[in-house]
Amino acid sequence: VSGIAYVNGLFLPIEEARVSVEDRGFQFADGVYEVLRTYNGKIFAMEEHLQRLARSLDAVEIKNAPSSLMLADIIRDGLHRSQCKEAVIYLQITRGVAPRKRDFPKHVEPTVVMTVRELEPLPDEIRERGLRTITMPDNRWGRCDIKSTALLANVLAYNKARAAGVDDAIFVGADGFVSEATAGNVFVFDGTRLNTPPSGPRILSGITREKMLKLAPELRIPAREAEISVETLKKAHEIFVTSTTIECVSVVQVDDAVIGTGKPGALAMRLREEFLKRVCET
Amino acid sequence: VSGIAYVNGLFLPIEEARVSVEDRGFQFADGVYEVLRTYNGKIFAMEEHLQRLARSLDAVEIKNAPSSLMLADIIRDGLHRSQCKEAVIYLQITRGVAPRKRDFPKHVEPTVVMTVRELEPLPDEIRERGLRTITMPDNRWGRCDIKSTALLANVLAYNKARAAGVDDAIFVGADGFVSEATAGNVFVFDGTRLNTPPSGPRILSGITREKMLKLAPELRIPAREAEISVETLKKAHEIFVTSTTIECVSVVQVDDAVIGTGKPGALAMRLREEFLKRVCET
Repeated sequence: VSGIAYVNGLFLPIEEARVSVEDRGFQFADGVYEVLRTYNGKIFAMEEHLQRLARSLDAVEIKNAPSSLMLADIIRDGLHRSQCKEAVIYLQITRGVAPRKRDFPKHVEPTVVMTVRELEPLPDEIRERGLRTITMPDNRWGRCDIKSTALLANVLAYNKARAAGVDDAIFVGADGFVSEATAGNVFVFDGTRLNTPPSGPRILSGITREKMLKLAPELRIPAREAEISVETLKKAHEIFVTSTTIECVSVVQVDDAVIGTGKPGALAMRLREEFLKRVCET
Repeated sequence: VSGIAYVNGLFLPIEEARVSVEDRGFQFADGVYEVLRTYNGKIFAMEEHLQRLARSLDAVEIKNAPSSLMLADIIRDGLHRSQCKEAVIYLQITRGVAPRKRDFPKHVEPTVVMTVRELEPLPDEIRERGLRTITMPDNRWGRCDIKSTALLANVLAYNKARAAGVDDAIFVGADGFVSEATAGNVFVFDGTRLNTPPSGPRILSGITREKMLKLAPELRIPAREAEISVETLKKAHEIFVTSTTIECVSVVQVDDAVIGTGKPGALAMRLREEFLKRVCET
């Protein structure tokens, strides 16, 4: 069986990997994480992911975590041991274990947890029909730029969307502007330009989001960060969502509005094609 | 040594109590909790706490958790085994263990964790000098009425307050109204009446908050739920914070404003005295 876990220096089967009930990650969501993936067994954008992890650790003041270099070694080691053909790597660092108190504990070692599992790609039939979505008030906390494990709002919104018979929710702020999907960034083509909500505390700026913002102009598709109203969203020629695991996938419905032709758009397909080409070249 | 843990049916030393790294409580903050305490070895307001836990479980759609009756047995059993003289009981229920995906897993059993430790009461010197606080923008998520473990915002605010040399932070919403402290409800005496922010999605309505709202009128102190602006807060005759573990403790400073005489107020002392009297009578 492929797959492996890592906990504070030890590799072990995922089923045996455990943390203390007094880990602050468990009791306070006092931790941050990254999800990485491979292409042809090679880790995609490891440096960018580890840089973002370092920023998250810094933002929540978790000190003494292993360096990016050490984490890179752990990831590569885990990937090798996992025997996965194509892997999804989940890496989580928490503030560590201490009797439950809000105070940052003194003299505590961060908990480092990793799981490496066989990647389950988005099913082709979903990619080919495109995502159906509903909008939902963005009720998440004010620091969505920190990739923390305080994800209950995302989990509840996603499952509410699923219960409503659609594939995902798109969060909309109290000001009427789109922030992101429950686990990916939103891009909207308005007929002229590709727009994506500006980076800042209201979104987690994805690695794939950043790559698409660079890639689009190279394909002569004007792209920019800009606020997107719900009205603009629903009148879009094309919408797609990006993340490391799904790359870029079209949205064909938002609430009652059909987007474009109701089928995945040409822009998203073109961008993904070029994105994958470059991934495999590096 | 006193203290004990419980994990899914088993009692064991706290240091040995563990959960899977793929527990959704650890990876998504997909769980809820309660903190209970004893007076003279007797559990305070167990029924109210378990009712609130049931509401939290319901709000996040965690099904198949043990019934309140079963949880009451587990708590009493744990308290007995812990050999604590005066205990703080932490009870957490998560959605359970599953490979990491946002979807609510099917056929999963909730994880039930409890720790019972010797209670560390608020030091007398802090109670006697009163809390110094600073206000902070309430950047928590929109469902603070759910007692979930997605507490990173609270943890960061509390530690920011401590780093600023004070005892706690008081959250203020974008509309300028007070919501709560980082782990307790806020009461403000304006010279005529005791006011506390209305129950609703912006606050976790504490058991002690509810008891105080009933107790005050019996002592001929008019009390009500009402929005409290920062200006009203800073001009208060008296402020106090309530929670199960601290009962009711005076706030003597908010940002640069000294509250009342700068010493704990008479109202808070009177209410706590009467509160304790009734606790011990039941």
